[in-house]
This record gives sequence, C-alpha cells and structure tokens, in this order.
Amino acid sequence: MIIDCHGHYTTAPEAHTLWRAAQVAAFKAGEAFPSYPVISDDEIVDTIEKNQLRLLRERGADMTIFSPRASAMEHHVGNEEVSLAWSRACNDLIARVVSLFPETFVGVCQLPQSPGVPVADSVEELRRCVEELGFVGLNLSPDPSGGRWDGLPLTDVSWFPIYDAMVELDVPAMIHVSSSCNVNFHATGAHYMNADTTAFMQLLQGDLFATYPDLRFVIPHGGGAVPYHWGRYRGLADMLDKPDLSTHLMGNVYFDTCVYHQAGIDLLFEVINIDNILFGSEMVGAVRGIDPTTGHYFDDTKRYVDALELSNEDRTKVYSGNARRVYPRLDHLLVQQGR
Amino acid sequence: MIIDCHGHYTTAPEAHTLWRAAQVAAFKAGEAFPSYPVISDDEIVDTIEKNQLRLLRERGADMTIFSPRASAMEHHVGNEEVSLAWSRACNDLIARVVSLFPETFVGVCQLPQSPGVPVADSVEELRRCVEELGFVGLNLSPDPSGGRWDGLPLTDVSWFPIYDAMVELDVPAMIHVSSSCNVNFHATGAHYMNADTTAFMQLLQGDLFATYPDLRFVIPHGGGAVPYHWGRYRGLADMLDKPDLSTHLMGNVYFDTCVYHQAGIDLLFEVINIDNILFGSEMVGAVRGIDPTTGHYFDDTKRYVDALELSNEDRTKVYSGNARRVYPRLDHLLVQQGR
Repeated sequence: MIIDCHGHYTTAPEAHTLWRAAQVAAFKAGEAFPSYPVISDDEIVDTIEKNQLRLLRERGADMTIFSPRASAMEHHVGNEEVSLAWSRACNDLIARVVSLFPETFVGVCQLPQSPGVPVADSVEELRRCVEELGFVGLNLSPDPSGGRWDGLPLTDVSWFPIYDAMVELDVPAMIHVSSSCNVNFHATGAHYMNADTTAFMQLLQGDLFATYPDLRFVIPHGGGAVPYHWGRYRGLADMLDKPDLSTHLMGNVYFDTCVYHQAGIDLLFEVINIDNILFGSEMVGAVRGIDPTTGHYFDDTKRYVDALELSNEDRTKVYSGNARRVYPRLDHLLVQQGR
Repeated sequence: MIIDCHGHYTTAPEAHTLWRAAQVAAFKAGEAFPSYPVISDDEIVDTIEKNQLRLLRERGADMTIFSPRASAMEHHVGNEEVSLAWSRACNDLIARVVSLFPETFVGVCQLPQSPGVPVADSVEELRRCVEELGFVGLNLSPDPSGGRWDGLPLTDVSWFPIYDAMVELDVPAMIHVSSSCNVNFHATGAHYMNADTTAFMQLLQGDLFATYPDLRFVIPHGGGAVPYHWGRYRGLADMLDKPDLSTHLMGNVYFDTCVYHQAGIDLLFEVINIDNILFGSEMVGAVRGIDPTTGHYFDDTKRYVDALELSNEDRTKVYSGNARRVYPRLDHLLVQQGR
C-alpha cells in the first residue's frame, strides 16, 4: 500500500475559486460575503478523476492525505473573519472529496490563522475538522503574514493552544506556509523552502518536545535545506548545547519526499533515518512539467524512491508504515476498511 | 594550489569589536563616533596566526579570499553614516591583514548598505577597496534589513549601480546576508540558508544576466537549498518559460563548498557543473565543533572534497582554477607573485 502524505486540492472547481475572489472583493468593499455556490458531486468527481486520481493510478499509489491548496490559504489576506469563512469552505470541500472517494483520500485541514490573531482561535476549526469531518491532521503555517515573518517562532508559548489540541486529538501538523506577499520570495521556489528550513531551526533552538513529547510535525519539501546541510545542523545543535538531533528533534519531526530529482532523494535517504521519511509528491502541485533528462514528471517522486535499494521493510515504512504511525487516525480508518 | 573563497575575519582584535559597540552606543546617544583605536601589527598577526593561518596550514590550503565578519556587518543597525564608518573600519582592517600576509590573504569588502538607502551609495566604498586597497571582490547583502526583507529583489533596477561598478571593476560579489534582527531566523541556521535560496530564485525569475552578461555572483553555503532541490529549480525555470539553467544562470552563478558533511558535498558535485563550484570553508565561522561521526571539524570541507573521485583537472578547477577565473584580480595578483 502506498500513501502519499502531501497532496493539495489544486484543481478545485472554478466556482469555489471564484467565490474566494468574490469574498475578498466583498471584504474590501465592506460588504457581506456572498453565499457559497452550489457545486455538484459530478463537478468534484470530474476535477479529481481527471487529475489526482488519474495520476495516482498512473504512478501506482493508493491514497493521498489531502488538504486545501496551500498557496490559496492566504492567511494574510483580509482578516480573521475572512480567513475563517475561507478555511471552512476549503475544509468542507476536502470533506466532500473524501466522502466521494473514501478509500483514496483522507482529509487534512487548513486553519483560519490570521496575522496577529492568536492561533488559539484556530482550535475550534481544527476540532470541527477532526471530530466532525474525520480529518487526520492539519496544515500549520509558521508565517501567517505571508512572507513578512512578523510573528513569533513555533517554540513560543503563544503557539501552545494549538499544540494542546493536536496532542489531545492525536493529529500531526504539516508545517506549510501559503503564498508570499513579499516580492523577495517566490512562493514555491523560495518561501516554501525557507519556511521548512526556518521551522526546523526554530525547533532546534528550542526544547518544544520536552514540553510536548507526543507532538508531531511533518516538514515538507524534503525538509527544505536541512538534509543537504545535515552536518551544519548537527554542528549547530552541538554549539547550542542541545542533545543530538536524533533525540532532540527526530522523535517528533518527519520529512516528506517532495524532492524532484534522484540525487536529492538519494541524499535524503542517506542522511535521514528511514523512520522519519514519509512518501509524498505534492502533486498536482508546485512543478508540473516533465524533466527532459528523464522523460518523466519532476513530481513523480515514486520513481525516485523505487530506484533506491531499500529492504522490503524499509520500503513499507516509507510508503505506508510511517504515515500510519504519524497519522494514527488514518491508521484507524484503514483498519476499519480492512486495509 | 588551494584557494579558500570564503573566509571571514571572525577573530578580529577585541579593540575593533569594542569600537563597534562604542560606535553604536554613540549613535544611540546622538554623540560623535569615538576615534578608532590603535591596533598594532602584532595584535593582528597574533589573531591570524593562532586561527586562520594555523587552520590553513593544518588543513592544507594556501590562501583565503578574506572578508569582514559577515554576522557583524549589521547593515540594519544605525543608519547609513554608521554603516559607512563601520564598513571602512572593517575593510581597512582586512587590508592590514592582507598587507601582513600578502601571499595568504586577499581582500573582499563589506559594503555600507543601509535599509532604504540606495545601493548606489555603496559604490564609492567598493571603488576605494578595489582601486586603493587592492581588493578582488565584495560581499553584497540581498537583505540589508537583517531579516525583515523589506527591500527589493536583486533583479530590480535599483541594484544596477552596484552591478555597473562590478562589471567595470571586473569583481564578483558573494551574496551574503548579515545577522538577523528577526526572531524567526537564526543567523547561520536559517537566515543564511534562506538568503542563498532566495537570491537564486530571484535570479531565476529575472533576466539579469541578459542585461549584465559579465556579472558574477558566488552564492555561499553550497547554494542554500538549491542543489538539493535542483530538480525543482529546473522545473520552475521550465514553468516560468526561462531558458535551461545552464544558460539562464550558470554562466554567472557559482556555489562554494561550505556544506559540512560528505553526503552534501557528494550531492553538490553530482548535480552542479564542476566549473561552477569554488572551494570554500567559511572558517573560522558558523560551525566550530568536531563531528563525532568523523572525528574531524565540521567545517574542514577540504576533507570532503579530497574524498571525491575527481580528475586532476577537475580538482584544480575547484581548488584554484575557478576562483582565478571568477576573481580575475586575484589571478592577476597571483601571476605577479609568480604563482
């Protein structure tokens, strides 16, 4: 069984995207938000079958941990009310995809984060998504300001209310920023990578997992710059008088395989323990083209993992075992389905 | 011959560092800057012989392209006048090191950049350093705000005056930020890596080298996240309708070898053309400890490069040939010295 831990609904029906534009326009005009449009099951089925489901079948994966389009979360647009209404609409749409394809997709929510607003205000939507919609995790933005980075590090106590809820609900967070409103940072080429690297270093500087031993984070895009600079991070832990990374962070931090070439995947598996790597593709996502040097899609990460010399046991960990361990609610669902 | 392209004077005499503290205090108090202290040649010789020169000898390199301590550039502290006086003091100190050890060190300057101040104002100090002090390059900060990132990308026309001077003087810039005043970004663990990645992506989005075909940038710390995500960047170039990276950027962009473990160096050399890699260590720098898995210093990057299976021709390129090509004023000096 192959579980892709990192998929976004980047192909949502046009009416959903148009509603977002109308919502933002209404906010700017000081008007009430428009009513959310009627979207038929057929429309949703169509967007999934032509894209994510087709690619899952073509590439040979079975299931995707599925969340709203990350670049469209746009926590920095509007205010808390805008973010909440948009998050609910996005999460409800994910829930419909899951209900239409219950054996292929499982939900992860976006949060109604908003710059300067306590993340505690996002707990209610997290609870709704997990307890009512059956979601198994969340996307947590370390920078709801969208590239201004004017908030506080993930180790600050202001983040603890969401961690309390995560531990209670037994759900992990993928650390994932949205688009950038800072002209210096291209979203998928700089802001995403920087956020992954920054989050890891914030965790390294702190002692968050001493306080929250059961908290779990997935850092996407192969961990940003971290595995490539693994020696630097081991050395910085030493300089900062922190324990070895294996005990300081790697009981709680996981990386996905969204690294779009063989050499990068090779490095990831060489330096990071197999128990900390979850298969992911980020498709249909950041990079949609075909690599002329291989003739295959850049984001067909299964090909790179398949090319590794892994034992059956290790391959099973990366493709499903680690995901079932990090997302216990997913494991519970799969057991219920007899898988 | 082995040239380290990335060394900082992190061990400058205490009087120099104390003067900086006094200068900043005077600025805050609205008082005149204190007089720069008398520092003897012996003091400078002592700080170099015990540190950089000792390590060069122990590790087997011959020469360092040497610049002021990067984390202390602090362009975000004070104002333009503060930055100019501090830059001149730092650059003059580098010039003294070079004059004391002319066969071992060659100078690269810091610029008196200041947030919101046109980089054109830094051209005069660059000219002074190159034309009067004999420096061969510069460190250019893509974010003089120190982690607030409130300026414009390197491809913006506001940067062109410094590029005009660089082309005229035939000197390359290392893209190097200073310390971070943003609590989200640890300097050497996040801000440096992010700046490297961000700068590369800014260049990828633009067409700067169509305007400046002779402009040359060294992106340090092994290129931040870029080589690890080389597939992503090749794919993004394709999505953005840019030429292949080999022609779009890699005639003008170089990476150093400041990657502190073997697997990272292996990846760098696997994906990046040998002509674009310059030996560097960043010592005495970001990570000062010994790697318990090897028994050697993390930043002894020569060991990792020595462990690669390179032809003699390729090894010469990485250790000296590429540096002499990218820094033609260094080559000229070496020829004068009969080397």
